[in-house]
Amino acid sequence: MTPPIRGPVSPLATSRLAVRPLGLDQVELTGGFWARWQRQNREVTTPHALSWLERDGSVANLRSLAKVGSSVPHQGMWFSDSDVHKVLEALSWDLGRAPSAYLSGSVSELAEVLRAAQQEDGYLNSYVQAGHDVRWDNLVMSHELYCIGHLIQAGVAHARATGTDELLDIARRAADCVVRDFAELRRKDTDGHPVIEMALVELYRQTGSRPYLELAQQLIDVRGHRVLDPKGHFDSTYYQDAVPVREQSTVVGHAVRALYLLCGVVDVYTETGERALLDSALRQWESLLATKMYLNGAVGSRFDGESFGDEYELPPDLVYGETCATIASVMLSWRLLLATGQSRFADHIERALHNLFAASTSVERDAFFYNNPAQRRTARPAAPTQTRPQRAEAPGTRPHWFQCACCPPNIMRTVASLGGYVATCADDGIQIHQYLPAVINAPAGSLTMATDYPLDGTVELTVTSSTSDTPWTLALRIPDWCRGATVTVNGDAASASPGERGYLELARPWQEGDRITLTLPMPPRLTTPHPAVDALRGTVAIERGPVVYCLESPDQADGVDLNHVEILVDEPLAEEPRPDLLGQPVIVVTAAGFARDDSAWAGSGWATLGEQPPPTGRPVRLTAIPYHLWANRGPSVMRIFIPTRHT
Amino acid sequence: MTPPIRGPVSPLATSRLAVRPLGLDQVELTGGFWARWQRQNREVTTPHALSWLERDGSVANLRSLAKVGSSVPHQGMWFSDSDVHKVLEALSWDLGRAPSAYLSGSVSELAEVLRAAQQEDGYLNSYVQAGHDVRWDNLVMSHELYCIGHLIQAGVAHARATGTDELLDIARRAADCVVRDFAELRRKDTDGHPVIEMALVELYRQTGSRPYLELAQQLIDVRGHRVLDPKGHFDSTYYQDAVPVREQSTVVGHAVRALYLLCGVVDVYTETGERALLDSALRQWESLLATKMYLNGAVGSRFDGESFGDEYELPPDLVYGETCATIASVMLSWRLLLATGQSRFADHIERALHNLFAASTSVERDAFFYNNPAQRRTARPAAPTQTRPQRAEAPGTRPHWFQCACCPPNIMRTVASLGGYVATCADDGIQIHQYLPAVINAPAGSLTMATDYPLDGTVELTVTSSTSDTPWTLALRIPDWCRGATVTVNGDAASASPGERGYLELARPWQEGDRITLTLPMPPRLTTPHPAVDALRGTVAIERGPVVYCLESPDQADGVDLNHVEILVDEPLAEEPRPDLLGQPVIVVTAAGFARDDSAWAGSGWATLGEQPPPTGRPVRLTAIPYHLWANRGPSVMRIFIPTRHT
Repeated sequence: MTPPIRGPVSPLATSRLAVRPLGLDQVELTGGFWARWQRQNREVTTPHALSWLERDGSVANLRSLAKVGSSVPHQGMWFSDSDVHKVLEALSWDLGRAPSAYLSGSVSELAEVLRAAQQEDGYLNSYVQAGHDVRWDNLVMSHELYCIGHLIQAGVAHARATGTDELLDIARRAADCVVRDFAELRRKDTDGHPVIEMALVELYRQTGSRPYLELAQQLIDVRGHRVLDPKGHFDSTYYQDAVPVREQSTVVGHAVRALYLLCGVVDVYTETGERALLDSALRQWESLLATKMYLNGAVGSRFDGESFGDEYELPPDLVYGETCATIASVMLSWRLLLATGQSRFADHIERALHNLFAASTSVERDAFFYNNPAQRRTARPAAPTQTRPQRAEAPGTRPHWFQCACCPPNIMRTVASLGGYVATCADDGIQIHQYLPAVINAPAGSLTMATDYPLDGTVELTVTSSTSDTPWTLALRIPDWCRGATVTVNGDAASASPGERGYLELARPWQEGDRITLTLPMPPRLTTPHPAVDALRGTVAIERGPVVYCLESPDQADGVDLNHVEILVDEPLAEEPRPDLLGQPVIVVTAAGFARDDSAWAGSGWATLGEQPPPTGRPVRLTAIPYHLWANRGPSVMRIFIPTRHT
Repeated sequence: MTPPIRGPVSPLATSRLAVRPLGLDQVELTGGFWARWQRQNREVTTPHALSWLERDGSVANLRSLAKVGSSVPHQGMWFSDSDVHKVLEALSWDLGRAPSAYLSGSVSELAEVLRAAQQEDGYLNSYVQAGHDVRWDNLVMSHELYCIGHLIQAGVAHARATGTDELLDIARRAADCVVRDFAELRRKDTDGHPVIEMALVELYRQTGSRPYLELAQQLIDVRGHRVLDPKGHFDSTYYQDAVPVREQSTVVGHAVRALYLLCGVVDVYTETGERALLDSALRQWESLLATKMYLNGAVGSRFDGESFGDEYELPPDLVYGETCATIASVMLSWRLLLATGQSRFADHIERALHNLFAASTSVERDAFFYNNPAQRRTARPAAPTQTRPQRAEAPGTRPHWFQCACCPPNIMRTVASLGGYVATCADDGIQIHQYLPAVINAPAGSLTMATDYPLDGTVELTVTSSTSDTPWTLALRIPDWCRGATVTVNGDAASASPGERGYLELARPWQEGDRITLTLPMPPRLTTPHPAVDALRGTVAIERGPVVYCLESPDQADGVDLNHVEILVDEPLAEEPRPDLLGQPVIVVTAAGFARDDSAWAGSGWATLGEQPPPTGRPVRLTAIPYHLWANRGPSVMRIFIPTRHT
């Protein structure tokens, strides 16, 4: 058996992969936006999160289980264990990136709490063990397998990052308890919230023990036959339990649940080769991208049930757009990229990371959006710093923590493991999916990547070693947004036409010192929505490279109300570099605009066609910043989509 | 003291009223759409509601309180008492319309239950009395004053309809308990859900006892100073407790609460003359109509908190549009109409009744929308007939009852008391606000009104008696949607120009047999939204007279997908009478349309401007029906707002 690769997704059955992942030890981020975030993730977000886990009772819930006769009531959400497990996973990946006594110590301390809390037979759930529910009795709501799923992911991450079993042992005991209880006796049961499926596959990959894979398959097979008894507000669709996954045509119900499930579905396909599973995931992903995804990578438009809406139901003002859902879309896209080698999945990852994901977190990296607005008509009060709002509340700025704190640790684990999404390898070479300053060590050779991307589109790759004198292929993603890409090798122009998978393929006997310069032109552009997106008709968005822009009130001239502006789409956009906007270099985009004077409409929101007041107003210059930077300068008004006007 | 008028709003201080209400005994609906609904309300909806109140435990909750030592746990929502009270109010108004042994018997039976449940000191709340909460301990959530408010409204309605105190006595004992507990000892407390304010004013009007009015004033004064301690999801704005009502500029927070509160605010103004209260209500109403109301009369766009959105936040696909909120907007508009005599308030009542309100109920009148979609992209399964969905679930057709069943009895009481909204009187004559077949008996004289309105715009009024030989004024509302109204008196044309209040005023010494013919042309027309309504940009709606139309899938040609159609706005609309559509005569409107073929977009919901596929498609004829008839023919796709296309 090949030793597992030290990253989040490490298939054993690599023969079915189009491209293979590299480990976190094989890709190092060396500078720029994302490396800075990784540093902040360790220095700012990690202590922030650990302190909130103590403040909000999540650790106390587990700690009290160790005390005999303790009867402290459970605090917070009934699935608060998962926050602890997800933070542990984040810390583990970060440990794999670079050692840290602080991180190791924090992991050990929490592992000790988990060990003491875990029952003799491996079961672990602080809410149930505190007597608030009965084990496996309320799976539709209880999140018991969900919490254990996150524990497994933490255990696997820690083992891969450190090579030790400190957390994995705990996770494995919990997983063994689930296998014992479910593989035979509860063949018709599953959890209301998927995640354990992909966790079990990864545990199989880590340990080689097939019962984990078999249980993952079983949990996927049973779902969709209305095995969960819906309680309260939500129906079987919400739980992805109305239609078996192999028959499902589009993503439905709770967005995070749907996408976590599909991650497990692709993972099982990868190990078993059941093509119907891959086909379903591809079909659902395609439907998602074509009809249910916002330009900023938001998925799941409805507040009601945190769920996907109907096709083309993408209103910017009432979008839910949960951070976890976009992260889940990245996780799914990565698995599909490994399975197919197609650039469209890396394109989505790029869109998601540079926009909604980056916007989810404050520039200080200690505050977070749970749901991500795409339009803010009225400036709202700043988020409180010392209390935890409910998840769907929408203050003007990012809250520091949440009653349901699933998103912040999800962001943390993604940032810590980001190196895993940059490049892959195959027998014929190396594929580069994301552009950022990095060192990449793959079987075929090693590379350094230097770039200011996405500030500009020049990417310099240098071969630092090559393990073979025979030709191998360096594949560079040509982003779907890019027109006119060019490439040179050691100064000589080469063909920049992408192959059928969407990658420019450079095949030659690479040697140390070879230099590849990829140039991706990224003039600012206007993007128009599909004509069936009713809520965005007659608007465009500004994009530049992979970055979605927005208009935010602090950047506009006095007296410009963003609720009453239009963009002159026939006039050119202009770029304006700002060396330091919110602590980073930024290219601002400006556009010719029109400040509409709607005062003649006073009194009614409706007019008979032909009787409406003629449009009046004045020309203005509109200033757009990258969407991910919004809401860092106090309460503000913001919009991504701008009504159009022709000159 | 002048005896109160036998209708829902009966001011004592009539000197401040621009126009005075007529009693339900003074206006009789004699035919057409609304009289038919009144009959169905009695014959179908009433037994349906009474049976559900038994099935869902609302009556049982109260009944069990009478049993000493009973410990049946409370069933349903903690404010289920209010459903019983509201049904009692509906039955009472209906009794006032015409006697019925069945209705009297039902009221008496329920009154007996209430009497037996009521505590010695008048307190009545089945949830608290069953031990699930402590009296007045949790006012932000408990709805104790809300429930008692509805009990008071039922008691007043019953007294006015029947002249007896059978229910009023119970209501008064509860009100006295509230006065005792709040007027002195709890001067800083109020209920999370307003309604008791207007109920107390009406009880004052019914009894002449000033402490009720004073407590209403006190509850209005205290609110807005963050006296409620918000729990969980919602903040002070949700409860209208963030800003004192006299300072509030626009409707905010939970829509029903905001509008119920404003009803009480106008009621207190009417009795006390404090102009700041009226000004606030006018200001908020104007803001509502100009920026936060849908064309169909829906108010409160957000699912999250059942609340008003920001200005111009009116997406059709994610609208909440609670039936109770639109009813509350009718109640508020009626109070403002009495205070000002201005037609714009009657215009809104007409819009609300003919559209959202009528759409809220199935043509069989035994099923209801809680939240009212303005667009349905995907046909959803039919509503269950034997179970009660959660309120915000949106099945394809109307559910028969709800876990939170506030809307159906609200609809019932409105239908039963609809005569009260038709006409008013003043010292100088009679004002007609709504056009429907009716007999009107006012102090100045009596009229019959014959019309097929809104099928056509001809209204025939005949004076059947006049109490004076001196001239008095018959004022006829010229609807805001109407262009080119004409009028004849005994066959002679008269001026149809409306006065400054929006009414055509005919002043003369009226005599028995005088005939007035008002003609309100109502060709179908296209209506365009305010340019700041982002979600409706580039669309129009079809209207005809007061009726908003929609496209529903059963009426379209095969293969026409309403998610991909456009309307050719330069082509004329056509009318097509249908003698029997869903059991009633209807004018269908057809329009030249275009079925867009969006297949070239497959794969992505976004395109760089200039690169999007050229629009292709084929001409189609679109068929529109009155919006209020949608969802009566099984699951369907529907839209009110249609993307525009120029020929």
